[in-house]
Amino acid sequence: MALPRLLVRALHRAAAAAAPSAPDFNSFVPRTNTCGELRSAHVGQKVTLYGWVQYQRQGLFLVLRDFQGLTQVIIPQDEAHSHVRELLSGAPLESVLRVTGTVSPRPLGQENPKMPTGDIEVKAETAEILNSCKKLPFEIKDFIKKSEALRMQYRYLDLRSSRLQSALRLRSRLVMSMRHYLCNLHGFVDVETPTLFKRTPGGAKEFLVPSREPGKFYSLPQSPQQFKQLLMVGGLDRYFQVARCYRDEGSRPDRQPEFTQEALAEYGTDKPDTRFGMKIVDVSDVLRRSNVHFVQNALTYPHGSIRAICIPQGVRYLTNKDLESLKESAKSQFNQEIMEIIHRPDGSLKSLLTKFLGEKEKSELIQALNMQEGDVVLLAAGEHEQVCRALGALRLLSASLLEAAGLALRDPTAFHFLWVVDFPLFLPKAENPTELESAHHPFTAPHPSDASLLYSDPTKVRSQHYDLVLNGNEVGGGSIRIHSAEQQRFVLEKVLKEDSEVLSHLIEALELGAPPHGGIALGLDRLISLIVDAPSIRDVIAFPKSFRGRDLMGNAPDYVTPEELEPYHIQVSWPLEEKEAKKN
Amino acid sequence: MALPRLLVRALHRAAAAAAPSAPDFNSFVPRTNTCGELRSAHVGQKVTLYGWVQYQRQGLFLVLRDFQGLTQVIIPQDEAHSHVRELLSGAPLESVLRVTGTVSPRPLGQENPKMPTGDIEVKAETAEILNSCKKLPFEIKDFIKKSEALRMQYRYLDLRSSRLQSALRLRSRLVMSMRHYLCNLHGFVDVETPTLFKRTPGGAKEFLVPSREPGKFYSLPQSPQQFKQLLMVGGLDRYFQVARCYRDEGSRPDRQPEFTQEALAEYGTDKPDTRFGMKIVDVSDVLRRSNVHFVQNALTYPHGSIRAICIPQGVRYLTNKDLESLKESAKSQFNQEIMEIIHRPDGSLKSLLTKFLGEKEKSELIQALNMQEGDVVLLAAGEHEQVCRALGALRLLSASLLEAAGLALRDPTAFHFLWVVDFPLFLPKAENPTELESAHHPFTAPHPSDASLLYSDPTKVRSQHYDLVLNGNEVGGGSIRIHSAEQQRFVLEKVLKEDSEVLSHLIEALELGAPPHGGIALGLDRLISLIVDAPSIRDVIAFPKSFRGRDLMGNAPDYVTPEELEPYHIQVSWPLEEKEAKKN
Repeated sequence: MALPRLLVRALHRAAAAAAPSAPDFNSFVPRTNTCGELRSAHVGQKVTLYGWVQYQRQGLFLVLRDFQGLTQVIIPQDEAHSHVRELLSGAPLESVLRVTGTVSPRPLGQENPKMPTGDIEVKAETAEILNSCKKLPFEIKDFIKKSEALRMQYRYLDLRSSRLQSALRLRSRLVMSMRHYLCNLHGFVDVETPTLFKRTPGGAKEFLVPSREPGKFYSLPQSPQQFKQLLMVGGLDRYFQVARCYRDEGSRPDRQPEFTQEALAEYGTDKPDTRFGMKIVDVSDVLRRSNVHFVQNALTYPHGSIRAICIPQGVRYLTNKDLESLKESAKSQFNQEIMEIIHRPDGSLKSLLTKFLGEKEKSELIQALNMQEGDVVLLAAGEHEQVCRALGALRLLSASLLEAAGLALRDPTAFHFLWVVDFPLFLPKAENPTELESAHHPFTAPHPSDASLLYSDPTKVRSQHYDLVLNGNEVGGGSIRIHSAEQQRFVLEKVLKEDSEVLSHLIEALELGAPPHGGIALGLDRLISLIVDAPSIRDVIAFPKSFRGRDLMGNAPDYVTPEELEPYHIQVSWPLEEKEAKKN
Repeated sequence: MALPRLLVRALHRAAAAAAPSAPDFNSFVPRTNTCGELRSAHVGQKVTLYGWVQYQRQGLFLVLRDFQGLTQVIIPQDEAHSHVRELLSGAPLESVLRVTGTVSPRPLGQENPKMPTGDIEVKAETAEILNSCKKLPFEIKDFIKKSEALRMQYRYLDLRSSRLQSALRLRSRLVMSMRHYLCNLHGFVDVETPTLFKRTPGGAKEFLVPSREPGKFYSLPQSPQQFKQLLMVGGLDRYFQVARCYRDEGSRPDRQPEFTQEALAEYGTDKPDTRFGMKIVDVSDVLRRSNVHFVQNALTYPHGSIRAICIPQGVRYLTNKDLESLKESAKSQFNQEIMEIIHRPDGSLKSLLTKFLGEKEKSELIQALNMQEGDVVLLAAGEHEQVCRALGALRLLSASLLEAAGLALRDPTAFHFLWVVDFPLFLPKAENPTELESAHHPFTAPHPSDASLLYSDPTKVRSQHYDLVLNGNEVGGGSIRIHSAEQQRFVLEKVLKEDSEVLSHLIEALELGAPPHGGIALGLDRLISLIVDAPSIRDVIAFPKSFRGRDLMGNAPDYVTPEELEPYHIQVSWPLEEKEAKKN
């Protein structure tokens, strides 16, 4: 599939558009230039700029900022301009100003080559404060050090930072570029689907919206899942949408099926970051004949395994404390003991293990792990999946530690995509393992080779679901869907034991000429945060919600009056203690 | 402003892209061509097509349809292909097929010049039914005659019609073109704003969304109103969004202030369709000295007025029944009597009025209304606004009647845009006229010339709101916003007597360096329905809700179990009778 190629191309196109040409102004705009535009060639011109006061110094000059850049403004000192001097010297930081003046070259030696407008300055002649700024709740330049809650509360101030400005502007161009690719180059049709719909079976994470019909509710769908299928049935063969997905995160966490063996054995995860090596190596055979108790013990498990990762130059880049923290993390997160082996510069191995190993075994171990002098190996013995997951986590943790210590390991400009396939179609229910639930959702089609297993042994059926992974992060997922009404009914009723009545419209649609179809959804927030190398998806969303789903700026959600609930025929069921508190 | 120009350009660009090039296929797609693609040049080629069975005749041939067009498939009649014959003859209409065969020229004389693929046919060699279609609930070709409810229930079948396919595809290209203009040409930034927010004061039309915190609710904002202001404050100076607007239509209808006198006097509406004349003409002065009782009576009103419209060639194109229905409509909708004057082919006037008029008055009347022989004049006397509104409605009704009778009056390809300005900032509350409410919303800025009136006589203040009208329909509206915190507080607290606390985040944002700002929102559904000349906005929405806000396909809203309400701390307040019914 061409999707990763699309993404890389879109990124390049968006990056190339990173410096949009100066915007046109119409006759309603008195501004002659933006704050990022003036150069030596403008010297002598009379200009009018608008912007925020970024900085002001001793009544001598100030720096004006707009969305395009910064310009230095010289405050006039002569008596004739005393009014302008007073105004500009007194304007609080972040006030909005108009400044009219003449472009002049900066005095020799005072040019600032780091600033695109650093060759010139504007000698102010008239000025106006359009909106004076009250004292800021904190200094904007220290903003990033402030608490997340404070930054969220004053999100509109944080938005003025170059960090968020460039992230949001890049996001806009990137999405535009994707649209161009899909819509203009490949004939996809952009269709908006409803977000007020009805509850999907098992849709525990869907928000409810009370209607004016007593007892009836809409639901905010987590995704346009059903609608995109119905669009395919409706002959809109190449559909796309930049869609909202509502997920009530307050409910139980995702239980992602993660058991793809290929990837798991080498990377300890089904979402491997393949930008660097340090793969997990099976050393069971090397150690099988050794006389080490915990090794022998591990190999008695049904899925016993001895595996290890080799950390390059670990001796130089990892402290003892680092190694301890790695081992502790494996213990606390995966209940997995880790043994370390250090390849000394003199070629010998240092480990609690070594006294149990012969020279042949030592040399086989060095070879199997491709150990170099100065490397550190972390070894785990136990049940296969637990061992792999623990080492997979340690692989990522130690990569971060190596990088923090100065070893360039992962190329931040590299984009390694990979597809994860062959998921199971069904999983045993956590609460009752004799019953099955869909690994993803009940509309995913079975793998064609496993179709007959659906009727004999549904737990063995692989699905036609696929995930797209970028640098170790899941950025998308999708599936080929069931297009046979009979198969869909069988899955819902016989395998999942669900009432198919609530999906009767979808099943009926499958009966009326549904073509075979499938699709994919990308998680834009995650994808773009990876592309701009942002630590959190909140850095690429204009107004993100807090972890608990709150809007800290506007204070949502909030109480409403009983009168406002009346048209919707609902009332609040107050928990007992609050009821009591309200009474008093 | 350049907006109407943008829209017309976008339309032309989108229309020019009306025939997208044949889509590329990748290696996963066995299809060699689409059903709209084959021509004489392809004769002799072996092709594989996929599509729906559009038509099948006597086991001899069938027509295959996909998103690109139609192709005629010849069913083989020889014994070697009996299996293919059986399959193709037996495939129900709207089944999904694969057909592989050879492109052949149609026999001489059997070409179909109306069909882009009408020169060829495909001689089927192998075929496969991918999904057989159950008996359709109705014949698709008769679909348009079915009830709206049935069409909504089977929306995915309706979507296969060329009518909806082309409307939705044009809409997609049009929106893409707008995005291109804003984003690529003018540096606008596409930003998604949250749709789960908190209730705005007076937001009676906002849906509520219960949260997991007892008693607390989100609100689905009617528009991203507050967020777009905060983006301006945050330095995202050129922002746009194709946004969802949620409006709970179940509540009281719009009370639009409609009193712009310019437009009202000539067109009887503030949203005039200026594609045709038939303007309202003031004939008060002509008739003032006449001895007609109802005329004199009307002129005694404080705002008394005699006005008329002249229907060109009304004698020829309007029946007596038409004229009666026009008069009845003015009576029932506006309580306005209408008098007709017919300009006879012989030059004389026929009317109840004429016997009271002298020759001079008759000739002045003919001149004032520019009456030609065969024209019909509708005249109304009474209070100014009532007269204008009644005649404005009759102007549109008679235009439709003339067109139905065959007179081309309004050019369906013409796009007449106009701006409506100078709305009042406040209106007396319907329920208590001594109190004021915002004509649009409390964030609209006063007209600069009227700023001081805000403090002395707020009812006289014009707003900086503007509406965009296309061919007589409101397609957009916007305003310059208040950027002074002090002014915003005054409007909320002193004029509107509202609690400004709930908007404290916005007022604080205005204090922290908010630039002067404004914007506009277009109603895409309405705009596109006008462009494609669709009778309803439902014809340009993939999955529209019914008039009462129901989704008839999926049956939303719907009942949910009390258990599903529990996490949201709400319960249904059943109306008494339903409560009783539930008990029994």
